[in-house]
Amino acid sequence: MMKPLPTILLSLFLCSFAFAQEPGCENLFPDNAVILFQGDSITDGNRGRSADPNHIHGHGYVYLIASDLGANHPGKNWTFVNRGVSGNTVEKLQQRWEKDTIAVKPDVLSIMVGCNDFSHGVTAQEYYDRYDSLLKETVEKLPNVKLIIIEPFYRADEETLKRYAPFQKAAADLAKKYNAVFVPTQQMYSEAFQSVPKPEYWVWDRVHPTTTGHWLLYKQWLKCVKEN
Amino acid sequence: MMKPLPTILLSLFLCSFAFAQEPGCENLFPDNAVILFQGDSITDGNRGRSADPNHIHGHGYVYLIASDLGANHPGKNWTFVNRGVSGNTVEKLQQRWEKDTIAVKPDVLSIMVGCNDFSHGVTAQEYYDRYDSLLKETVEKLPNVKLIIIEPFYRADEETLKRYAPFQKAAADLAKKYNAVFVPTQQMYSEAFQSVPKPEYWVWDRVHPTTTGHWLLYKQWLKCVKEN
Repeated sequence: MMKPLPTILLSLFLCSFAFAQEPGCENLFPDNAVILFQGDSITDGNRGRSADPNHIHGHGYVYLIASDLGANHPGKNWTFVNRGVSGNTVEKLQQRWEKDTIAVKPDVLSIMVGCNDFSHGVTAQEYYDRYDSLLKETVEKLPNVKLIIIEPFYRADEETLKRYAPFQKAAADLAKKYNAVFVPTQQMYSEAFQSVPKPEYWVWDRVHPTTTGHWLLYKQWLKCVKEN
Repeated sequence: MMKPLPTILLSLFLCSFAFAQEPGCENLFPDNAVILFQGDSITDGNRGRSADPNHIHGHGYVYLIASDLGANHPGKNWTFVNRGVSGNTVEKLQQRWEKDTIAVKPDVLSIMVGCNDFSHGVTAQEYYDRYDSLLKETVEKLPNVKLIIIEPFYRADEETLKRYAPFQKAAADLAKKYNAVFVPTQQMYSEAFQSVPKPEYWVWDRVHPTTTGHWLLYKQWLKCVKEN
């Protein structure tokens, strides 16, 4: 029996809601995947250092990603691990990489680093070379890992942003070299800074997103990972 | 000119997506509203005690609500405040109510409390009476506040849940008495516990949701608040 048109329209309407609730992430990562987040304080988010599940993901984009994907795909049995450490540069990541990344055996590895290199006087070339070396080691030891590289961002005047741009280009170039998903962030934040009177609404000091600013990073990460 | 049916269907499909992205929360609270969350450790979520905006919302449903609503409605200038304190019973809330609630002058006040009263031997009648007194004081001192009461929940055997039910009924009855939005949670969690092999996926001990479990609480809160 043919359904009448209003019923078809209603079904389609409701169906599209169901789809919006489950935004096509089913095949994002393999079943039982370990998804590891590495970086500095923006990733760390005051995460707990014990195994207490209350606090292991920190306050930030990692929490939002783990909460959303974990809740909407419970059957996938994905494990989200945060190993961000406040103040980290690429060099500091290198020093703890074996213990905090290789030993975790991630299937997916998301990295955001750069603002501390910049503020500690590391040059863009040094940043590139160290990051390159870190990624080389990573793909040698974890040949099947899926890499995600987040562009480091800054809230600053134009002159500072111009000096930071080579660091951002380095991250983009390395994402290309290592076939990683690249998550651009600077333009997104720069646009958000225009949308309300106070840029501090999104990024409260030069580098740390607010609770609301982390939402943008989470959505951007998910969008880029889904498209790749 | 009549549009052909496929165009109409496509428009409807895309339109429903747009609606799903902006879920009709524009008029949820007045412009510049202060939205305060009160409760125990589930609300606290290891929130920072300083004014450092990195950590003020804790890890939990408060973070998810503040992040979502803040990011999607920046023009509203809503302020989300978390004053949950681990281990709090209704009696402990009463002791700090003037300083931590009345003085904050919230436009919206969301409360979840109960599990510590239960585990500390408070009877359901005492819980009702103290909670009633707390709410009476609240509406006297903040006559225009919009109240939201979250049902306290538990992950436990049937016998324990049966003993907890009068506390949950007390919260529901008080929501009705004070014309508050009521956010039911027990059935939602009980159903989630059936959906994967391990209930710990959602609530890791008896009372604390995991990162993924907090997503359910956030979505349920938003759904109930939008409907009322």
